[in-house]
Amino acid sequence: MSIRIDRPEPHGGRLIDRVVKDPAAGKKLAKGCPVYDIKPTVDEKGVPVRNVYREIMSTCYGFFSPVEGSMKQAEVERILKERRLLNDWIFPYPLVFDISEEDYKQLGVTSGDRVLLRLKGEPFAILDVEEVYRIEDREELAHKTFGTPQDNPEVVKEPFDKKHPGWVIYKSLNPVVLAGKYKIINEPMMVPPFDRFWFPPKKCREEYDRRGWRTVINHQTRNVPHLGHEHLMKNAAYTGDSEPCHGIQVNAIIGVKRKGDYPDEAIVEGHEAVNTGNYINPNRHLVTICLWDMRYGNPLESMLHGVIRQNMGCTHHMFGRDHAAVGEYYDMYATQILWDKGIPSFGFPAPVNEVPYGLKIRPQNMAEFWYCPKCLEIAYSANCNHKERQKFSGSFIRGMVAEGVFPPGVIFRPEVYKIVAKWWKHYGYPFVNPKYLIERERELEVDVPHMEI
Amino acid sequence: MSIRIDRPEPHGGRLIDRVVKDPAAGKKLAKGCPVYDIKPTVDEKGVPVRNVYREIMSTCYGFFSPVEGSMKQAEVERILKERRLLNDWIFPYPLVFDISEEDYKQLGVTSGDRVLLRLKGEPFAILDVEEVYRIEDREELAHKTFGTPQDNPEVVKEPFDKKHPGWVIYKSLNPVVLAGKYKIINEPMMVPPFDRFWFPPKKCREEYDRRGWRTVINHQTRNVPHLGHEHLMKNAAYTGDSEPCHGIQVNAIIGVKRKGDYPDEAIVEGHEAVNTGNYINPNRHLVTICLWDMRYGNPLESMLHGVIRQNMGCTHHMFGRDHAAVGEYYDMYATQILWDKGIPSFGFPAPVNEVPYGLKIRPQNMAEFWYCPKCLEIAYSANCNHKERQKFSGSFIRGMVAEGVFPPGVIFRPEVYKIVAKWWKHYGYPFVNPKYLIERERELEVDVPHMEI
Repeated sequence: MSIRIDRPEPHGGRLIDRVVKDPAAGKKLAKGCPVYDIKPTVDEKGVPVRNVYREIMSTCYGFFSPVEGSMKQAEVERILKERRLLNDWIFPYPLVFDISEEDYKQLGVTSGDRVLLRLKGEPFAILDVEEVYRIEDREELAHKTFGTPQDNPEVVKEPFDKKHPGWVIYKSLNPVVLAGKYKIINEPMMVPPFDRFWFPPKKCREEYDRRGWRTVINHQTRNVPHLGHEHLMKNAAYTGDSEPCHGIQVNAIIGVKRKGDYPDEAIVEGHEAVNTGNYINPNRHLVTICLWDMRYGNPLESMLHGVIRQNMGCTHHMFGRDHAAVGEYYDMYATQILWDKGIPSFGFPAPVNEVPYGLKIRPQNMAEFWYCPKCLEIAYSANCNHKERQKFSGSFIRGMVAEGVFPPGVIFRPEVYKIVAKWWKHYGYPFVNPKYLIERERELEVDVPHMEI
Repeated sequence: MSIRIDRPEPHGGRLIDRVVKDPAAGKKLAKGCPVYDIKPTVDEKGVPVRNVYREIMSTCYGFFSPVEGSMKQAEVERILKERRLLNDWIFPYPLVFDISEEDYKQLGVTSGDRVLLRLKGEPFAILDVEEVYRIEDREELAHKTFGTPQDNPEVVKEPFDKKHPGWVIYKSLNPVVLAGKYKIINEPMMVPPFDRFWFPPKKCREEYDRRGWRTVINHQTRNVPHLGHEHLMKNAAYTGDSEPCHGIQVNAIIGVKRKGDYPDEAIVEGHEAVNTGNYINPNRHLVTICLWDMRYGNPLESMLHGVIRQNMGCTHHMFGRDHAAVGEYYDMYATQILWDKGIPSFGFPAPVNEVPYGLKIRPQNMAEFWYCPKCLEIAYSANCNHKERQKFSGSFIRGMVAEGVFPPGVIFRPEVYKIVAKWWKHYGYPFVNPKYLIERERELEVDVPHMEI
């Protein structure tokens, strides 16, 4: 019985790397191809809800290994039925390159053709079309993607609808899908401050080696860390094998924002302040990002998080209640059910890391933290049995921040709060507002170098 | 790959239970046997250093499973050579029933005879003699038991000597060994407050069932818990499988004391105050005891702790630096080396839970905790990177207590300190003094009911 836990292989056995580093080679690949300018997916009011460039980035840099491109119809159908790719490896969501009928007509491509995809007006990637098909019913696709109370009674409590951002993404797709593999031919550059948090799987694994990390636990975030988050990270990291996890990785999902979110810049720099402030030793803490427009699919999103972080090299992943959830569509424990027992109606009669062609990363399912004035510390629900509980209510904290009240030390570390204030000053408001949304959608997280083809 | 961790079997496969519950049956077994009154082992100055009754209790109630009695010569030799019993299961220490030449002559027993052992003047147990042999060189036995820098260069730094209490125990044994199985024929009663912490392995496993605990981590103690201990317990317990350990068990070793120790009563009630004070939910926390005169054998002691707590049903055991150590005889990491890599010279080319007939309990090797005035909390050495560190120095805390200074809240929980004060009042001094030693040696931890044979 060896209890040593080693770094897992990438999902599917090898890291996907579809990035051409040599511009000359990139140009050659794109020469003479029909051109398509990537545009955001928008909802019925014209508000951007997704940008497929993020999926292309995460695919080509290997975060989504073994996915290599836009999925064929049979693959989408298999995913909706049993959450498996055509090569049998488990995967939660359909990922497609979708365009409008008008654009399709104008592009005039078919199977076997190559399309040059432009981003911010510059050559970015190519798509080798292997199949063209139509999504007949996008609402049905959206329902099947997230599940329904009838089909998935174990965890789906309410039918999904337009109040759910992930459902809206699928509902808003264009009708024509170009399926095939992507290749980035002109590497975009992350803009500051995101550039220093950009650790694609290959680089991330090298960074673990450099730091001597064998066991690493991942913290999923879309938040500036308050003390509850900090303690979740520090405490979940006591798991490991014969000793606590060597590394604590924060992986922030960077993508489309919703009003009231913290700006992404404050999120990544706020997490960084936890280690530059020495609350978690910088040698044990690594803040990273992944580009993705959150689908908020709770158990399904947790699977994708497992895929991403296993590909990055993590051995463990912490999950709380209501993981990556919006509203009350799913059971609040749906993610923990998926990782503890499985969800048969989604194709998993056993936990996702016990099924064939499943994941190798291990879950650490955590309960709640609050500040206890009797313990005089951040307390964990399984330990503290005192009556008075100062919970970390996101809306209360946001309200306090919005009112300009400097939060007490038991809510934010001063170093972290300074970051909130810094980006507040920059954007004129502590949270995401229409100005931010417009600016971010125009600028994205990358600059694309000029390239003549 | 199932990551679920189930309660381990007892060491050796089954719990030893050699306690006769029916007094009539007990009397029958002891009828007509020659009688021996158990007396303490004393050092060269006549100070008690061990009482074999504790080994008889721990053996017959199954804490030391699969050990069933006083060891034969071949078994002692095998243990000293490869730390294995004659049935191949690993075990760290020779355990023998030793008597003086005079007592042996007077007793007049030989192989095949049964001896009635009396405790506090009452019938207690029987010993079925299977072999009688002599310890030719007790100093050599003591050296071989703990190791020498020559024979065990991986972990032994200095030769053991009379400043080491475990070495003194082996050096002080009587020369004649009666080897054979014990059976308790008249069940002693634990005296308060020890009675409510008495959970022999069978009862302990039933208690886990009652509480719904599958994963349980053990905390070894000889101390009244300060906040560093409390945080060690709470934090080490985040290990487990897919969720933190269900239970946190404190197992206090109750036995011969040294001047300056806290009284055993303050230790067990102090730990209990952590849960009655609701710092750790009473449903998650169980304070227990085991009778044993500590040998302070660091890695070897940790093996015994593994045996005891695996028999009690624990899945995990927390180990710090200098585990169960006195002085600097062993490398401060010797225990962690044993559980991480093994110590070949002690017979373990691999960790003690990876060798055949080895243990099944898992180690959780922890580093250091201190109070950090910057983090404003008890900090863990792998996380906190601030400069100012208020370490939990045992001698500093003892000095403060001895001076009557009420320790600040960052050292003791008030509920715990009240227990220290309670037993201070009772014994006239906060720590073990000669009066305590004399009283405890006379009273022990048990009363033995009157029994006529």
